[in-house]
Amino acid sequence: MSVIEIARDEARASRERFRAGECRPTAGIAPGMTQANLLAVPREYAYDFLLYAQRNPKPCPVLDVTEPGCAQTALAPTADLRTDIPRYRVWRDGELVDEPTDATEAWAEHPDLVAFLIGCSFTFETPLQRAGIDVRHISAGTNVPMFRTNRACRPAGAFHGELVVSMRPIPADRVADAAMISGRFPSVHGAPVHVGDPADIGITDLTAPDFGDPVEIRDGEVPVFWACGVTPQAAVMASRIPFAITHAPGYMFISDVSDTRYEV
Amino acid sequence: MSVIEIARDEARASRERFRAGECRPTAGIAPGMTQANLLAVPREYAYDFLLYAQRNPKPCPVLDVTEPGCAQTALAPTADLRTDIPRYRVWRDGELVDEPTDATEAWAEHPDLVAFLIGCSFTFETPLQRAGIDVRHISAGTNVPMFRTNRACRPAGAFHGELVVSMRPIPADRVADAAMISGRFPSVHGAPVHVGDPADIGITDLTAPDFGDPVEIRDGEVPVFWACGVTPQAAVMASRIPFAITHAPGYMFISDVSDTRYEV
Repeated sequence: MSVIEIARDEARASRERFRAGECRPTAGIAPGMTQANLLAVPREYAYDFLLYAQRNPKPCPVLDVTEPGCAQTALAPTADLRTDIPRYRVWRDGELVDEPTDATEAWAEHPDLVAFLIGCSFTFETPLQRAGIDVRHISAGTNVPMFRTNRACRPAGAFHGELVVSMRPIPADRVADAAMISGRFPSVHGAPVHVGDPADIGITDLTAPDFGDPVEIRDGEVPVFWACGVTPQAAVMASRIPFAITHAPGYMFISDVSDTRYEV
Repeated sequence: MSVIEIARDEARASRERFRAGECRPTAGIAPGMTQANLLAVPREYAYDFLLYAQRNPKPCPVLDVTEPGCAQTALAPTADLRTDIPRYRVWRDGELVDEPTDATEAWAEHPDLVAFLIGCSFTFETPLQRAGIDVRHISAGTNVPMFRTNRACRPAGAFHGELVVSMRPIPADRVADAAMISGRFPSVHGAPVHVGDPADIGITDLTAPDFGDPVEIRDGEVPVFWACGVTPQAAVMASRIPFAITHAPGYMFISDVSDTRYEV
């Protein structure tokens, strides 16, 4: 089997395990296969969200949109979006009300849910590692740390909210490499949005991420921040959208698409 | 004044001339400033078109979307989309019914028109020229040649249709350079979709473009095809959308945004 066939088999096998109930963050699983964030909203909110994504392409790069009421995506034709993500979040009026490992019941509440699959920075983690840059949360076996910022996204219709970022500590002499490598993947968040002082973007404590787990920052390393696909969840909260289903941060949808599709 | 200030002044001055009635193709005007394709449709068709664009990002890279009924764009805050393009096309039920130089009257027919500004391959023509590659339609002072192909776009709601491409003849030993240079601009059509035999994509006669003017292909040159922002007009025709306003092919909207914004 080719490298890509092996990775695609691992993607399928992991989705089957998640469907059967396994629950863990997905960083490092099926390296080379594109992972995606999920937001599903009733059809009446779909235009506003698609426009929010168009206006905020760094945090919200849309990889696929389903037909209303359909839980299938072109990114993985055999997958079921209601069951194949390890952990979901169910939102009512912007409040998190449940975190099931199976979203079938919640999905059935609205016959016209439209699901958006949104690019994830995990896509450029394999190229970072291949370049000899340690991706700390992968080597530590934890979830990536994510933070809300004080930067507002450009609103669209019912959606407004702040930018959410993921953080990776990078040795000072590799920051330029990390920026260039990730910059080659503009449709999965691309280059960093901020390098250095977290206070500049309203982050007060790097040891207490808003989502995911903290990671060690070693001497000589600089915190580097990338736009994050949890940004739609911040918009659901801030905008008090009546109903939404998302993935749980770091518990992504693993697709059948090779990361190389998104490389410029 | 800086180079960018001079170019922005030229963009504004050209929009004022178009507003006053001047009518000519825009290739080569205000080099370095982003030019854009226009599609305006009633609000009820906006979601379907935005989804069509998401599903066909090479021909339909969306740079901005207006609020319903608003003719202002973030790409050029002082511009009026109803008057500042040199020539428009008005479509009814997929038929071209008028080509005015001022769209104010047609725009007023629908109080909720949503305008989409779509990236244009002119953005990477300045970098091609800087690399010493002759852009034939610019050096000839004509409109770029554009062709309908036999390649179907991925449909979305009411929209379906074929891919439209622009063609530039490139010396065989510069095709790789042209692909790499344009590939650095993924949000304005990016790298070519086809190189070589036009018959492979259903084009029978390079001397008879479906839109724009023919250009000379010299010995040792290869026809190179890029996805084109006239693709939405082909969709309006094929899908018989009840009402739409577009630019006339090659008669683009000239924005205040530097081409460098779209460079990866």
